[in-house]
Amino acid sequence: MITPYFLENFWGEKNNGFDVLYHNMKHGQISTKELTDFIRERSTIEDAYARSMTKLAKSSGNFSQLGTFAPVWDVFKSSTEKLASCHMELVRKLQELIKEVQKYVEEQAKAHKKTKEEVAPTLEAVQNIQSISQALQKSKEIYNAKTVEQERLRKEGATQRDVDKAGVKAKKATETYKSYVEKYATAKSEFEQKMAETAQKFQDIEENHILHMKEIIRSYSQSVDETHIQIGEVHNEFMRNIENTSVESLVQKLSESKGTGKERPGPIEFEECNTAIATEGAKP
Amino acid sequence: MITPYFLENFWGEKNNGFDVLYHNMKHGQISTKELTDFIRERSTIEDAYARSMTKLAKSSGNFSQLGTFAPVWDVFKSSTEKLASCHMELVRKLQELIKEVQKYVEEQAKAHKKTKEEVAPTLEAVQNIQSISQALQKSKEIYNAKTVEQERLRKEGATQRDVDKAGVKAKKATETYKSYVEKYATAKSEFEQKMAETAQKFQDIEENHILHMKEIIRSYSQSVDETHIQIGEVHNEFMRNIENTSVESLVQKLSESKGTGKERPGPIEFEECNTAIATEGAKP
Repeated sequence: MITPYFLENFWGEKNNGFDVLYHNMKHGQISTKELTDFIRERSTIEDAYARSMTKLAKSSGNFSQLGTFAPVWDVFKSSTEKLASCHMELVRKLQELIKEVQKYVEEQAKAHKKTKEEVAPTLEAVQNIQSISQALQKSKEIYNAKTVEQERLRKEGATQRDVDKAGVKAKKATETYKSYVEKYATAKSEFEQKMAETAQKFQDIEENHILHMKEIIRSYSQSVDETHIQIGEVHNEFMRNIENTSVESLVQKLSESKGTGKERPGPIEFEECNTAIATEGAKP
Repeated sequence: MITPYFLENFWGEKNNGFDVLYHNMKHGQISTKELTDFIRERSTIEDAYARSMTKLAKSSGNFSQLGTFAPVWDVFKSSTEKLASCHMELVRKLQELIKEVQKYVEEQAKAHKKTKEEVAPTLEAVQNIQSISQALQKSKEIYNAKTVEQERLRKEGATQRDVDKAGVKAKKATETYKSYVEKYATAKSEFEQKMAETAQKFQDIEENHILHMKEIIRSYSQSVDETHIQIGEVHNEFMRNIENTSVESLVQKLSESKGTGKERPGPIEFEECNTAIATEGAKP
Protein backbone atom coordinates (compact mmCIF):
# COMPACT_ATOMS: atom_id res chain seq x y z
CA MET A 1 0.00 0.00 0.00
CA ILE A 2 1.50 3.29 -1.14
CA THR A 3 1.28 6.49 0.91
CA PRO A 4 -1.75 8.51 -0.31
CA TYR A 5 0.45 11.34 -1.60
CA PHE A 6 -2.21 12.73 -3.92
CA LEU A 7 -4.81 12.81 -1.13
CA GLU A 8 -2.36 14.80 0.99
CA ASN A 9 -0.81 17.21 -1.49
CA PHE A 10 -3.48 18.51 -3.81
CA TRP A 11 -5.54 20.82 -1.60
CA GLY A 12 -4.43 24.41 -1.11
CA GLU A 13 -6.00 27.83 -1.16
CA LYS A 14 -7.18 27.95 -4.76
CA ASN A 15 -8.53 24.38 -4.77
CA ASN A 16 -6.62 23.76 -8.05
CA GLY A 17 -5.49 20.24 -7.14
CA PHE A 18 -8.20 18.58 -9.21
CA ASP A 19 -7.07 20.39 -12.34
CA VAL A 20 -3.42 19.45 -11.81
CA LEU A 21 -4.23 15.79 -11.14
CA TYR A 22 -6.61 15.57 -14.09
CA HIS A 23 -3.96 16.92 -16.47
CA ASN A 24 -1.37 14.66 -14.91
CA MET A 25 -3.55 11.70 -15.82
CA LYS A 26 -3.85 12.97 -19.39
CA HIS A 27 -0.03 13.27 -19.60
CA GLY A 28 -0.02 9.52 -19.03
CA GLN A 29 -1.26 9.17 -22.63
CA ILE A 30 1.65 11.27 -23.85
CA SER A 31 4.14 9.11 -21.95
CA THR A 32 2.69 5.92 -23.45
CA LYS A 33 2.90 7.44 -26.93
CA GLU A 34 6.49 8.51 -26.27
CA LEU A 35 7.44 5.04 -25.03
CA THR A 36 6.03 3.63 -28.27
CA ASP A 37 8.08 6.20 -30.20
CA PHE A 38 11.21 5.19 -28.30
CA ILE A 39 10.73 1.48 -28.95
CA ARG A 40 9.84 2.13 -32.59
CA GLU A 41 12.97 4.22 -33.10
CA ARG A 42 15.14 1.56 -31.42
CA SER A 43 13.57 -1.00 -33.72
CA THR A 44 14.37 1.18 -36.76
CA ILE A 45 17.99 1.51 -35.60
CA GLU A 46 18.32 -2.27 -35.10
CA ASP A 47 16.75 -2.84 -38.51
CA ALA A 48 19.26 -0.53 -40.21
CA TYR A 49 22.12 -2.25 -38.34
CA ALA A 50 20.88 -5.70 -39.36
CA ARG A 51 20.58 -4.63 -43.01
CA SER A 52 24.10 -3.19 -42.99
CA MET A 53 25.39 -6.44 -41.47
CA THR A 54 23.62 -8.48 -44.16
CA LYS A 55 25.29 -6.27 -46.78
CA LEU A 56 28.67 -6.75 -45.09
CA ALA A 57 28.13 -10.53 -45.04
CA LYS A 58 27.44 -10.40 -48.79
CA SER A 59 30.57 -8.31 -49.39
CA SER A 60 32.73 -10.79 -47.51
CA GLY A 61 31.09 -13.59 -49.54
CA ASN A 62 32.26 -11.76 -52.68
CA PHE A 63 35.83 -11.41 -51.48
CA SER A 64 38.52 -13.16 -53.52
CA GLN A 65 38.26 -16.95 -53.57
CA LEU A 66 41.95 -17.11 -54.45
CA GLY A 67 44.88 -17.40 -52.06
CA THR A 68 45.58 -19.29 -48.87
CA PHE A 69 43.44 -16.97 -46.72
CA ALA A 70 40.30 -17.26 -48.90
CA PRO A 71 38.52 -20.04 -46.90
CA VAL A 72 38.56 -17.78 -43.79
CA TRP A 73 36.00 -15.49 -45.48
CA ASP A 74 33.41 -18.24 -45.03
CA VAL A 75 33.85 -17.86 -41.26
CA PHE A 76 33.39 -14.08 -41.54
CA LYS A 77 30.41 -14.41 -43.86
CA SER A 78 28.57 -16.96 -41.74
CA SER A 79 29.22 -15.07 -38.49
CA THR A 80 28.14 -11.73 -39.96
CA GLU A 81 24.94 -13.29 -41.29
CA LYS A 82 24.20 -14.69 -37.83
CA LEU A 83 24.87 -11.28 -36.28
CA ALA A 84 22.39 -9.73 -38.73
CA SER A 85 19.83 -12.41 -37.74
CA CYS A 86 20.19 -11.60 -34.04
CA HIS A 87 19.36 -7.95 -34.68
CA MET A 88 16.52 -8.88 -37.05
CA GLU A 89 15.09 -11.11 -34.33
CA LEU A 90 15.19 -8.13 -31.96
CA VAL A 91 13.34 -6.04 -34.55
CA ARG A 92 10.66 -8.74 -34.76
CA LYS A 93 10.26 -8.83 -30.96
CA LEU A 94 10.10 -5.02 -30.70
CA GLN A 95 7.44 -4.90 -33.42
CA GLU A 96 5.38 -7.41 -31.42
CA LEU A 97 5.85 -5.29 -28.32
CA ILE A 98 4.76 -2.12 -30.16
CA LYS A 99 1.50 -3.89 -31.06
CA GLU A 100 0.92 -4.66 -27.39
CA VAL A 101 1.68 -1.08 -26.39
CA GLN A 102 -0.77 0.12 -29.05
CA LYS A 103 -3.47 -1.93 -27.34
CA TYR A 104 -2.60 -0.28 -24.04
CA VAL A 105 -2.74 3.17 -25.72
CA GLU A 106 -6.33 2.44 -26.75
CA GLU A 107 -7.34 0.98 -23.39
CA GLN A 108 -5.79 3.93 -21.61
CA ALA A 109 -7.67 6.48 -23.77
CA LYS A 110 -10.95 4.65 -23.08
CA ALA A 111 -10.22 4.44 -19.35
CA HIS A 112 -9.44 8.14 -19.22
CA LYS A 113 -12.70 8.96 -20.98
CA LYS A 114 -14.60 6.85 -18.45
CA THR A 115 -12.71 8.48 -15.58
CA LYS A 116 -13.57 11.94 -16.93
CA GLU A 117 -17.26 11.05 -16.63
CA GLU A 118 -16.80 9.52 -13.19
CA VAL A 119 -15.04 12.57 -11.78
CA ALA A 120 -17.46 15.07 -13.36
CA PRO A 121 -19.28 15.54 -10.00
CA THR A 122 -15.93 16.32 -8.38
CA LEU A 123 -15.22 18.95 -11.03
CA GLU A 124 -18.66 20.43 -10.28
CA ALA A 125 -17.88 20.44 -6.54
CA VAL A 126 -14.60 22.23 -7.29
CA GLN A 127 -16.29 24.87 -9.44
CA ASN A 128 -19.00 25.15 -6.80
CA ILE A 129 -16.66 25.81 -3.86
CA GLN A 130 -14.64 28.21 -6.02
CA SER A 131 -17.66 30.29 -7.07
CA ILE A 132 -19.28 30.14 -3.61
CA SER A 133 -15.99 31.24 -1.99
CA GLN A 134 -15.95 34.26 -4.27
CA ALA A 135 -19.61 35.04 -3.71
CA LEU A 136 -19.14 34.63 0.04
CA GLN A 137 -16.24 37.05 -0.01
CA LYS A 138 -18.25 39.57 -2.02
CA SER A 139 -21.36 39.24 0.15
CA LYS A 140 -19.20 39.76 3.25
CA GLU A 141 -17.78 42.96 1.76
CA ILE A 142 -21.28 44.24 0.89
CA TYR A 143 -22.53 43.33 4.38
CA ASN A 144 -19.65 45.24 5.95
CA ALA A 145 -20.14 48.24 3.67
CA LYS A 146 -23.90 48.42 4.31
CA THR A 147 -23.45 48.04 8.08
CA VAL A 148 -20.82 50.77 8.17
CA GLU A 149 -23.04 53.01 5.99
CA GLN A 150 -25.98 52.62 8.43
CA GLU A 151 -23.69 53.39 11.39
CA ARG A 152 -22.27 56.44 9.62
CA LEU A 153 -25.75 57.87 8.91
CA ARG A 154 -26.73 57.29 12.53
CA LYS A 155 -23.62 59.02 13.91
CA GLU A 156 -23.88 61.93 11.50
CA GLY A 157 -27.49 62.43 12.64
CA ALA A 158 -29.26 61.66 9.39
CA THR A 159 -33.03 61.49 9.26
CA GLN A 160 -34.63 58.44 10.82
CA ARG A 161 -36.01 57.59 7.39
CA ASP A 162 -32.57 57.46 5.84
CA VAL A 163 -31.21 55.45 8.77
CA ASP A 164 -34.10 52.96 8.45
CA LYS A 165 -33.61 52.71 4.72
CA ALA A 166 -29.92 51.93 5.27
CA GLY A 167 -30.98 49.45 8.00
CA VAL A 168 -33.14 47.49 5.49
CA LYS A 169 -30.20 47.32 3.09
CA ALA A 170 -27.82 46.18 5.85
CA LYS A 171 -30.26 43.50 6.98
CA LYS A 172 -30.64 42.19 3.45
CA ALA A 173 -26.84 42.12 3.08
CA THR A 174 -26.56 40.26 6.38
CA GLU A 175 -29.00 37.59 5.16
CA THR A 176 -27.18 37.16 1.86
CA TYR A 177 -23.85 36.88 3.69
CA LYS A 178 -25.27 34.33 6.16
CA SER A 179 -26.79 32.27 3.34
CA TYR A 180 -23.37 32.11 1.63
CA VAL A 181 -21.74 31.03 4.87
CA GLU A 182 -24.21 28.14 4.96
CA LYS A 183 -23.82 27.37 1.26
CA TYR A 184 -20.06 27.40 1.70
CA ALA A 185 -20.26 24.88 4.57
CA THR A 186 -22.24 22.51 2.34
CA ALA A 187 -19.97 23.09 -0.69
CA LYS A 188 -16.84 22.63 1.45
CA SER A 189 -18.08 19.34 2.87
CA GLU A 190 -19.13 18.15 -0.59
CA PHE A 191 -15.80 19.23 -2.14
CA GLU A 192 -13.68 17.69 0.59
CA GLN A 193 -15.40 14.32 0.36
CA LYS A 194 -15.42 14.18 -3.44
CA MET A 195 -11.87 15.53 -3.79
CA ALA A 196 -10.53 12.98 -1.30
CA GLU A 197 -12.11 10.12 -3.28
CA THR A 198 -10.95 11.51 -6.62
CA ALA A 199 -7.39 12.25 -5.49
CA GLN A 200 -7.09 8.60 -4.45
CA LYS A 201 -8.65 7.51 -7.74
CA PHE A 202 -6.11 9.59 -9.66
CA GLN A 203 -3.29 8.08 -7.61
CA ASP A 204 -4.60 4.57 -8.33
CA ILE A 205 -4.67 5.42 -12.03
CA GLU A 206 -1.07 6.69 -11.90
CA GLU A 207 0.11 3.65 -9.96
CA ASN A 208 -1.44 1.32 -12.52
CA HIS A 209 -0.08 3.40 -15.37
CA ILE A 210 3.48 3.28 -14.02
CA LEU A 211 3.17 -0.45 -13.34
CA HIS A 212 2.00 -0.97 -16.92
CA MET A 213 4.83 1.18 -18.29
CA LYS A 214 7.37 -0.75 -16.21
CA GLU A 215 5.90 -3.99 -17.53
CA ILE A 216 6.45 -2.77 -21.10
CA ILE A 217 9.99 -1.65 -20.26
CA ARG A 218 10.67 -5.04 -18.68
CA SER A 219 9.54 -6.78 -21.86
CA TYR A 220 11.70 -4.39 -23.94
CA SER A 221 14.70 -5.02 -21.67
CA GLN A 222 14.25 -8.75 -21.85
CA SER A 223 14.28 -8.72 -25.66
CA VAL A 224 17.38 -6.53 -25.70
CA ASP A 225 19.00 -8.83 -23.14
CA GLU A 226 18.21 -12.02 -25.07
CA THR A 227 19.66 -10.47 -28.22
CA HIS A 228 22.77 -9.47 -26.28
CA ILE A 229 23.28 -13.08 -25.15
CA GLN A 230 22.78 -14.39 -28.72
CA ILE A 231 25.28 -11.88 -30.10
CA GLY A 232 27.78 -13.06 -27.48
CA GLU A 233 27.31 -16.65 -28.62
CA VAL A 234 27.75 -15.70 -32.28
CA HIS A 235 30.93 -13.84 -31.43
CA ASN A 236 32.34 -16.70 -29.35
CA GLU A 237 31.62 -19.08 -32.19
CA PHE A 238 33.44 -16.73 -34.57
CA MET A 239 36.51 -16.62 -32.33
CA ARG A 240 36.44 -20.40 -31.92
CA ASN A 241 36.17 -20.93 -35.69
CA ILE A 242 39.07 -18.57 -36.34
CA GLU A 243 41.20 -20.35 -33.71
CA ASN A 244 40.29 -23.71 -35.26
CA THR A 245 41.27 -22.58 -38.75
CA SER A 246 44.93 -23.53 -38.43
CA VAL A 247 47.70 -22.23 -40.64
CA GLU A 248 48.48 -25.85 -41.54
CA SER A 249 44.91 -26.60 -42.64
CA LEU A 250 44.87 -23.53 -44.91
CA VAL A 251 48.23 -24.39 -46.49
CA GLN A 252 47.03 -27.97 -46.98
CA LYS A 253 43.70 -26.87 -48.51
CA LEU A 254 45.46 -24.58 -50.98
CA SER A 255 47.86 -27.39 -51.93
CA GLU A 256 44.96 -29.74 -52.54
CA SER A 257 42.90 -27.34 -54.62
CA LYS A 258 45.68 -25.66 -56.60
CA GLY A 259 48.42 -28.35 -56.58
CA THR A 260 50.01 -29.01 -59.97
CA GLY A 261 51.22 -32.53 -59.23
CA LYS A 262 53.48 -34.53 -56.99
CA GLU A 263 55.72 -35.93 -59.78
CA ARG A 264 59.06 -34.24 -60.18
CA PRO A 265 60.40 -34.13 -63.77
CA GLY A 266 61.69 -37.63 -64.68
CA PRO A 267 65.12 -38.37 -66.21
CA ILE A 268 65.24 -38.46 -70.01
CA GLU A 269 67.73 -40.86 -71.66
CA PHE A 270 68.92 -40.96 -75.28
CA GLU A 271 66.68 -43.44 -77.11
CA GLU A 272 68.26 -45.07 -80.19
CA CYS A 273 66.01 -45.12 -83.22
CA ASN A 274 64.67 -48.57 -84.02
CA THR A 275 64.35 -48.08 -87.78
CA ALA A 276 62.34 -51.26 -88.26
CA ILE A 277 59.61 -50.07 -85.92
CA ALA A 278 59.99 -46.45 -87.03
CA THR A 279 59.57 -47.40 -90.70
CA GLU A 280 56.72 -49.72 -89.80
CA GLY A 281 55.12 -46.83 -87.93
CA ALA A 282 55.66 -44.50 -90.88
CA LYS A 283 53.79 -46.80 -93.30
CA PRO A 284 50.20 -45.84 -94.04
CA MET B 1 56.88 -27.46 -37.99
CA ILE B 2 54.22 -27.67 -40.68
CA THR B 3 54.24 -30.39 -43.36
CA PRO B 4 56.01 -29.05 -46.50
CA TYR B 5 52.81 -29.20 -48.57
CA PHE B 6 54.06 -26.74 -51.19
CA LEU B 7 57.30 -28.69 -51.70
CA GLU B 8 55.25 -31.84 -52.30
CA ASN B 9 52.38 -30.59 -54.42
CA PHE B 10 53.65 -28.09 -56.95
CA TRP B 11 55.61 -30.25 -59.42
CA GLY B 12 53.77 -31.98 -62.30
CA GLU B 13 54.27 -32.46 -66.01
CA LYS B 14 54.08 -28.84 -67.15
CA ASN B 15 56.28 -27.53 -64.29
CA ASN B 16 53.63 -24.79 -63.65
CA GLY B 17 53.91 -24.97 -59.83
CA PHE B 18 56.11 -21.89 -59.61
CA ASP B 19 53.55 -19.77 -61.41
CA VAL B 20 50.68 -20.96 -59.18
CA LEU B 21 52.65 -20.37 -55.96
CA TYR B 22 53.87 -16.96 -57.09
CA HIS B 23 50.32 -15.81 -57.84
CA ASN B 24 49.12 -17.31 -54.58
CA MET B 25 51.61 -15.10 -52.76
CA LYS B 26 50.33 -12.05 -54.64
CA HIS B 27 46.74 -12.93 -53.62
CA GLY B 28 47.93 -12.41 -50.06
CA GLN B 29 47.94 -8.67 -50.79
CA ILE B 30 44.33 -8.86 -51.94
CA SER B 31 43.31 -10.70 -48.77
CA THR B 32 44.98 -8.04 -46.58
CA LYS B 33 43.20 -5.30 -48.52
CA GLU B 34 39.91 -7.14 -48.15
CA LEU B 35 40.40 -7.58 -44.41
CA THR B 36 40.97 -3.82 -44.16
CA ASP B 37 37.77 -3.28 -46.16
CA PHE B 38 35.86 -5.59 -43.83
CA ILE B 39 37.07 -3.84 -40.68
CA ARG B 40 36.47 -0.41 -42.23
CA GLU B 41 32.91 -1.34 -43.19
CA ARG B 42 32.24 -2.74 -39.71
CA SER B 43 33.56 0.51 -38.28
CA THR B 44 31.23 2.50 -40.55
CA ILE B 45 28.27 0.39 -39.42
CA GLU B 46 29.13 0.89 -35.74
CA ASP B 47 29.55 4.60 -36.34
CA ALA B 48 26.10 4.89 -37.93
CA TYR B 49 24.61 2.87 -35.05
CA ALA B 50 26.28 5.08 -32.45
CA ARG B 51 25.04 8.24 -34.19
CA SER B 52 21.49 6.90 -34.33
CA MET B 53 21.69 6.04 -30.62
CA THR B 54 22.91 9.56 -29.81
CA LYS B 55 19.93 10.92 -31.74
CA LEU B 56 17.58 8.60 -29.87
CA ALA B 57 19.09 9.73 -26.56
CA LYS B 58 18.40 13.34 -27.56
CA SER B 59 14.81 12.47 -28.54
CA SER B 60 14.16 10.86 -25.17
CA GLY B 61 15.67 13.94 -23.53
CA ASN B 62 13.07 16.00 -25.36
CA PHE B 63 10.17 13.84 -24.25
CA SER B 64 7.49 15.47 -22.10
CA GLN B 65 8.71 16.63 -18.68
CA LEU B 66 5.10 16.46 -17.47
CA GLY B 67 3.35 13.54 -15.79
CA THR B 68 4.31 10.94 -13.24
CA PHE B 69 6.38 8.91 -15.73
CA ALA B 70 8.54 11.85 -16.90
CA PRO B 71 11.55 11.24 -14.57
CA VAL B 72 12.01 7.76 -16.11
CA TRP B 73 13.14 9.37 -19.38
CA ASP B 74 16.36 10.41 -17.63
CA VAL B 75 17.14 6.70 -17.17
CA PHE B 76 16.47 6.05 -20.88
CA LYS B 77 18.46 9.08 -21.98
CA SER B 78 21.52 8.32 -19.87
CA SER B 79 21.54 4.63 -20.82
CA THR B 80 21.12 5.35 -24.54
CA GLU B 81 23.98 7.87 -24.40
CA LYS B 82 26.20 5.25 -22.77
CA LEU B 83 25.22 2.71 -25.41
CA ALA B 84 26.22 5.20 -28.11
CA SER B 85 29.57 5.70 -26.33
CA CYS B 86 30.29 1.96 -26.30
CA HIS B 87 29.85 1.77 -30.06
CA MET B 88 31.85 4.97 -30.58
CA GLU B 89 34.68 3.45 -28.54
CA LEU B 90 34.59 0.40 -30.83
CA VAL B 91 34.83 2.72 -33.86
CA ARG B 92 37.91 4.36 -32.31
CA LYS B 93 39.56 0.97 -31.70
CA LEU B 94 38.79 -0.27 -35.21
CA GLN B 95 40.23 2.92 -36.72
CA GLU B 96 43.44 2.30 -34.75
CA LEU B 97 43.49 -1.28 -36.00
CA ILE B 98 43.01 -0.16 -39.62
CA LYS B 99 46.13 2.03 -39.26
CA GLU B 100 48.10 -1.02 -38.10
CA VAL B 101 46.78 -3.14 -40.98
CA GLN B 102 47.78 -0.37 -43.41
CA LYS B 103 51.34 -0.68 -42.13
CA TYR B 104 51.22 -4.40 -42.79
CA VAL B 105 49.85 -3.77 -46.31
CA GLU B 106 52.94 -1.68 -47.06
CA GLU B 107 55.40 -4.13 -45.47
CA GLN B 108 53.77 -6.98 -47.35
CA ALA B 109 54.05 -5.20 -50.72
CA LYS B 110 57.74 -4.49 -50.06
CA ALA B 111 58.41 -8.08 -48.96
CA HIS B 112 56.73 -9.44 -52.10
CA LYS B 113 58.85 -7.18 -54.30
CA LYS B 114 61.99 -8.45 -52.58
CA THR B 115 60.82 -12.05 -52.93
CA LYS B 116 60.16 -11.52 -56.65
CA GLU B 117 63.86 -10.61 -57.06
CA GLU B 118 65.01 -13.51 -54.90
CA VAL B 119 63.06 -16.10 -56.87
CA ALA B 120 64.05 -14.70 -60.30
CA PRO B 121 66.68 -17.49 -60.79
CA THR B 122 63.97 -20.08 -60.06
CA LEU B 123 61.73 -18.52 -62.71
CA GLU B 124 64.68 -18.75 -65.12
CA ALA B 125 65.21 -22.41 -64.23
CA VAL B 126 61.51 -23.06 -64.87
CA GLN B 127 61.61 -21.35 -68.27
CA ASN B 128 64.84 -23.18 -69.03
CA ILE B 129 63.53 -26.68 -68.34
CA GLN B 130 60.32 -25.85 -70.21
CA SER B 131 62.14 -24.66 -73.37
CA ILE B 132 64.79 -27.45 -73.21
CA SER B 133 62.06 -30.07 -72.83
CA GLN B 134 60.42 -28.80 -76.00
CA ALA B 135 63.72 -28.57 -77.89
CA LEU B 136 64.66 -32.08 -76.74
CA GLN B 137 61.37 -33.43 -78.01
CA LYS B 138 61.81 -31.73 -81.34
CA SER B 139 65.47 -32.85 -81.75
CA LYS B 140 64.39 -36.41 -81.00
CA GLU B 141 61.75 -36.24 -83.72
CA ILE B 142 64.28 -34.87 -86.21
CA TYR B 143 66.83 -37.56 -85.24
CA ASN B 144 64.25 -40.28 -85.80
CA ALA B 145 63.14 -38.81 -89.13
CA LYS B 146 66.70 -38.49 -90.45
CA THR B 147 67.69 -41.98 -89.33
CA VAL B 148 64.59 -43.48 -90.97
CA GLU B 149 65.28 -41.47 -94.18
CA GLN B 150 68.86 -42.84 -94.40
CA GLU B 151 67.60 -46.40 -93.86
CA ARG B 152 64.93 -45.94 -96.54
CA LEU B 153 67.46 -44.73 -99.14
CA ARG B 154 69.71 -47.69 -98.35
CA LYS B 155 66.89 -50.20 -98.67
CA GLU B 156 65.56 -48.64 -101.88
CA GLY B 157 69.07 -48.88 -103.38
CA ALA B 158 69.79 -45.21 -103.78
CA THR B 159 73.21 -44.02 -104.92
CA GLN B 160 75.97 -44.27 -102.32
CA ARG B 161 76.33 -40.49 -102.58
CA ASP B 162 72.71 -39.94 -101.54
CA VAL B 163 72.97 -42.52 -98.73
CA ASP B 164 76.15 -40.83 -97.44
CA LYS B 165 74.53 -37.39 -97.64
CA ALA B 166 71.57 -38.68 -95.58
CA GLY B 167 74.07 -40.28 -93.17
CA VAL B 168 75.72 -36.91 -92.50
CA LYS B 169 72.33 -35.38 -91.76
CA ALA B 170 71.40 -38.29 -89.45
CA LYS B 171 74.68 -37.99 -87.59
CA LYS B 172 74.20 -34.28 -87.07
CA ALA B 173 70.65 -34.89 -85.78
CA THR B 174 72.01 -37.55 -83.41
CA GLU B 175 74.52 -35.09 -81.97
CA THR B 176 71.89 -32.36 -81.49
CA TYR B 177 69.56 -34.85 -79.82
CA LYS B 178 72.34 -36.11 -77.50
CA SER B 179 73.33 -32.54 -76.59
CA TYR B 180 69.72 -31.78 -75.54
CA VAL B 181 69.61 -34.95 -73.43
CA GLU B 182 72.67 -33.62 -71.60
CA LYS B 183 71.29 -30.06 -71.36
CA TYR B 184 68.03 -31.43 -70.02
CA ALA B 185 69.83 -33.36 -67.27
CA THR B 186 71.54 -30.13 -66.14
CA ALA B 187 68.32 -28.05 -66.39
CA LYS B 188 66.33 -30.70 -64.53
CA SER B 189 68.81 -30.82 -61.67
CA GLU B 190 68.94 -27.01 -61.53
CA PHE B 191 65.14 -26.71 -61.64
CA GLU B 192 64.54 -29.36 -59.01
CA GLN B 193 66.95 -27.80 -56.53
CA LYS B 194 65.74 -24.22 -57.06
CA MET B 195 62.05 -25.16 -57.14
CA ALA B 196 62.36 -27.11 -53.87
CA GLU B 197 63.92 -24.09 -52.14
CA THR B 198 61.40 -21.67 -53.59
CA ALA B 199 58.34 -23.83 -52.82
CA GLN B 200 59.41 -23.87 -49.18
CA LYS B 201 60.04 -20.11 -49.28
CA PHE B 202 56.52 -19.55 -50.64
CA GLN B 203 55.08 -21.77 -47.91
CA ASP B 204 56.99 -19.80 -45.24
CA ILE B 205 55.58 -16.58 -46.70
CA GLU B 206 52.04 -17.99 -46.60
CA GLU B 207 52.45 -19.25 -43.05
CA ASN B 208 53.64 -15.84 -41.88
CA HIS B 209 50.89 -14.11 -43.81
CA ILE B 210 48.14 -16.25 -42.22
CA LEU B 211 49.69 -15.78 -38.76
CA HIS B 212 49.67 -12.02 -39.31
CA MET B 213 46.07 -12.07 -40.55
CA LYS B 214 45.00 -14.14 -37.54
CA GLU B 215 46.75 -11.63 -35.29
CA ILE B 216 44.72 -8.81 -36.85
CA ILE B 217 41.51 -10.81 -36.52
CA ARG B 218 42.34 -11.53 -32.89
CA SER B 219 42.76 -7.81 -32.22
CA TYR B 220 39.47 -7.12 -34.06
CA SER B 221 37.68 -9.83 -32.06
CA GLN B 222 39.04 -8.52 -28.79
CA SER B 223 37.72 -5.01 -29.49
CA VAL B 224 34.30 -6.39 -30.46
CA ASP B 225 34.33 -8.55 -27.34
CA GLU B 226 35.24 -5.68 -25.00
CA THR B 227 32.45 -3.59 -26.49
CA HIS B 228 30.04 -6.47 -26.02
CA ILE B 229 30.91 -6.66 -22.31
CA GLN B 230 30.51 -2.88 -21.89
CA ILE B 231 27.12 -2.95 -23.62
CA GLY B 232 26.05 -5.71 -21.23
CA GLU B 233 27.05 -3.55 -18.26
CA VAL B 234 25.16 -0.54 -19.63
CA HIS B 235 22.08 -2.68 -20.14
CA ASN B 236 22.27 -4.20 -16.66
CA GLU B 237 22.58 -0.73 -15.19
CA PHE B 238 19.51 0.34 -17.17
CA MET B 239 17.46 -2.59 -15.85
CA ARG B 240 18.67 -1.90 -12.30
CA ASN B 241 17.77 1.77 -12.57
CA ILE B 242 14.30 0.95 -13.88
CA GLU B 243 13.76 -1.57 -11.07
CA ASN B 244 14.93 1.03 -8.54
CA THR B 245 12.54 3.67 -9.87
CA SER B 246 9.60 2.64 -7.71
CA VAL B 247 5.99 3.57 -8.37
CA GLU B 248 5.94 5.18 -4.91
CA SER B 249 8.97 7.36 -5.62
CA LEU B 250 7.42 8.62 -8.86
CA VAL B 251 4.07 9.39 -7.22
CA GLN B 252 5.92 11.15 -4.40
CA LYS B 253 8.10 13.16 -6.81
CA LEU B 254 5.05 14.34 -8.76
CA SER B 255 3.31 15.31 -5.51
CA GLU B 256 6.32 17.32 -4.41
CA SER B 257 6.83 19.15 -7.69
CA LYS B 258 3.21 19.74 -8.68
CA GLY B 259 1.46 19.69 -5.27
CA THR B 260 -1.01 22.54 -4.70
CA GLY B 261 -0.91 22.49 -0.92
CA LYS B 262 -1.67 20.32 2.09
CA GLU B 263 -4.31 22.67 3.64
CA ARG B 264 -7.89 21.63 3.12
CA PRO B 265 -10.36 24.49 2.82
CA GLY B 266 -10.94 25.91 6.33
CA PRO B 267 -14.35 26.53 7.87
CA ILE B 268 -15.74 30.01 7.32
CA GLU B 269 -17.92 31.47 10.08
CA PHE B 270 -20.20 34.49 9.91
CA GLU B 271 -18.12 37.45 11.15
CA GLU B 272 -20.14 40.27 12.65
CA CYS B 273 -19.10 43.68 11.45
CA ASN B 274 -17.24 45.68 14.07
CA THR B 275 -18.31 49.11 12.87
CA ALA B 276 -15.75 50.90 15.05
CA ILE B 277 -12.84 49.09 13.41
CA ALA B 278 -14.53 49.04 9.99
CA THR B 279 -15.05 52.81 10.12
CA GLU B 280 -11.54 53.29 11.44
CA GLY B 281 -10.26 51.14 8.52
CA ALA B 282 -12.37 53.18 6.10
CA LYS B 283 -10.78 56.47 7.22
CA PRO B 284 -7.98 57.84 5.02
